[in-house]
Amino acid sequence: MLFIPPTDLQNFMKQAFIKTGVHESNAEICAEILITSDLRGIESHGIGRLRMYIDRLLAGQIEPLAKPIIIKETPTSAVVDGCHGIGMVIAHQSMRMAIAKASEFGIGGVAVRNSTHFGIDGYYAMMAADAGMIGMSFTNARPAVAPTFSTQPMLGTNPIAFGAPTDEEFPFLYDAATSIIQRGKIEVLAREGRMAQHGWVVDENGNSKNHPGEILDDLTSGHAALLPLGGEGETYGGHKGYGLSTIVEILSACLQSGAFLLSLSGVDENGNPSRFKVGHFFMAINIENFIPLEEFKQNIGSLLRQLRAAKKSPGHTRIFTAGEKEFLVEKRVRSEGVPINENLRKDLIHIKEVLNLFDLPQLNQENQYD
Amino acid sequence: MLFIPPTDLQNFMKQAFIKTGVHESNAEICAEILITSDLRGIESHGIGRLRMYIDRLLAGQIEPLAKPIIIKETPTSAVVDGCHGIGMVIAHQSMRMAIAKASEFGIGGVAVRNSTHFGIDGYYAMMAADAGMIGMSFTNARPAVAPTFSTQPMLGTNPIAFGAPTDEEFPFLYDAATSIIQRGKIEVLAREGRMAQHGWVVDENGNSKNHPGEILDDLTSGHAALLPLGGEGETYGGHKGYGLSTIVEILSACLQSGAFLLSLSGVDENGNPSRFKVGHFFMAINIENFIPLEEFKQNIGSLLRQLRAAKKSPGHTRIFTAGEKEFLVEKRVRSEGVPINENLRKDLIHIKEVLNLFDLPQLNQENQYD
Repeated sequence: MLFIPPTDLQNFMKQAFIKTGVHESNAEICAEILITSDLRGIESHGIGRLRMYIDRLLAGQIEPLAKPIIIKETPTSAVVDGCHGIGMVIAHQSMRMAIAKASEFGIGGVAVRNSTHFGIDGYYAMMAADAGMIGMSFTNARPAVAPTFSTQPMLGTNPIAFGAPTDEEFPFLYDAATSIIQRGKIEVLAREGRMAQHGWVVDENGNSKNHPGEILDDLTSGHAALLPLGGEGETYGGHKGYGLSTIVEILSACLQSGAFLLSLSGVDENGNPSRFKVGHFFMAINIENFIPLEEFKQNIGSLLRQLRAAKKSPGHTRIFTAGEKEFLVEKRVRSEGVPINENLRKDLIHIKEVLNLFDLPQLNQENQYD
Repeated sequence: MLFIPPTDLQNFMKQAFIKTGVHESNAEICAEILITSDLRGIESHGIGRLRMYIDRLLAGQIEPLAKPIIIKETPTSAVVDGCHGIGMVIAHQSMRMAIAKASEFGIGGVAVRNSTHFGIDGYYAMMAADAGMIGMSFTNARPAVAPTFSTQPMLGTNPIAFGAPTDEEFPFLYDAATSIIQRGKIEVLAREGRMAQHGWVVDENGNSKNHPGEILDDLTSGHAALLPLGGEGETYGGHKGYGLSTIVEILSACLQSGAFLLSLSGVDENGNPSRFKVGHFFMAINIENFIPLEEFKQNIGSLLRQLRAAKKSPGHTRIFTAGEKEFLVEKRVRSEGVPINENLRKDLIHIKEVLNLFDLPQLNQENQYD
């Protein structure tokens, strides 16, 4: 495995976005959001997806220069049309609006339509947490998840992110798909040559699928589907994961008359690449309007520490709270660098050549031990 | 099984609350919320829990005449102290506040502390949906659920409720614990003499427990715990259910400096009954501040119909959306009556005798076929 310092990769990504026609300040936002994913150990949503963004920008599925339009605005709410721009730029701007509204009026909600993939959901919730607020962020996505009692990919992996400041070194940050597993994780398994677990994915006949390459193809063609959190049927609460996914779809589409379900496939009726029309919903809650921020931080810090101090399961020595593992990973990645496996190295060399980027010397070291 | 018309039971419950010292208008709210649970087929939270409320009122754990106090208020937010009154009354009033705030300022959030068990979470989300808004309702509860990598009951079953109006006969209404199964469902199994499924509950050694009576005892004594949605460990997303439960705990306690985790056990250090100090969080979002209500209703209706029309799993003929099954059950219960099994019949006779209530003649029919 090759390890490259995050700042080098961040700069590489920024240059790549600029070369596809993105303004420098927006390219900076994109690179910052993507590298945050790698820093937090979420390899599925960082530099590993750079090629996807670049390919889509070059194919015209994402408009590098699109400016989001505010369709409607009130003191506590806004509806934004992303005009098929870069999801990360649109989302960053929309969460900033939600935070500004919450700062002035207590709570702000911003509904976005016609956006595109925005990276890690948690980034936007964390923006609010960094501003001393509770932040929530939701997005729909390409159909991949089957409703309970169906085998058809209808819903996106539709994540929920929730962030809040604490009295500790790092915020509480929940960021998770409403399916058992998300598409990006399957992509990571494919790059690493590993198999998916039994019960994560079903084919049309309701049988479990394990091969990540086949799964990715079949998700796109509609012949396989990820299962909602809680799994198949209702016995272990699969209907709950399905319901949560539906809530995310509602918030990400119905308040803004945006696209949903199968119309988010990213291909037209002839199978050609088309606009994604992804929707998001952001919310910020100003804690100071309820209780003093410092009091809140102590409350939540105490709650989290009590959870970690609970009795451990046999064979386990540590209980984590949401965002804690990612905080620990970040310390390691900052010192060791971002792991780049052989497939990803080839992707980055491809991007460098296609966009005629400056050289990133580490990419020339072949991964002898990969 | 005995079947009693819902209006008879509703009246019986209202009288029972009045006899414990509750004002008539508040007794009406309690009876209305509890019977709504039975009408929707959620037997765990309706008349089956009447005895619990009455016992707690008689034991002084719930104050019949407590008046909630508004600790802090802004145009979009409020912090309410329930003063150990009846959870249903406090929650009803608090969600009304959230709706009024959303009606005037777009979004309203109300955080409640020192409340008690409030019945079905979905009732309050539905209040908002009935007012043409999106409603969300959260509550913490007695410790019952283990964090990932723990076997200790630390968190409540901490439900999430989300309601929204549609262009159909009934609203979208999600109402589910963040654990695989909730305590009330175990109580229903106990009354029916049925076993719990493997993987719902763990004992201190990490083994699955199945006997509902033992489970209820062991949950209270801390020797068994419900598992979060997604189950044990992280392989099937148990950490996601645990994280969602933590979010509900944060919203229900940290914004109002209320009690959380083990301090919600309802017993003091000597094992004697004490105040519950449950917390809630309610939110209402005025849809009209985003798009016209009728447009929203069509959007969500179309989304839900597309989900139901997805390809069915082998062996299944119907896909449901959240709130649909409950709507269908309500039609049946209104015509057939509420099912009352023998254990519940005895509970109701006990309540009738203790409170010296008017006769409910159906209770005298023994359940010969139960």
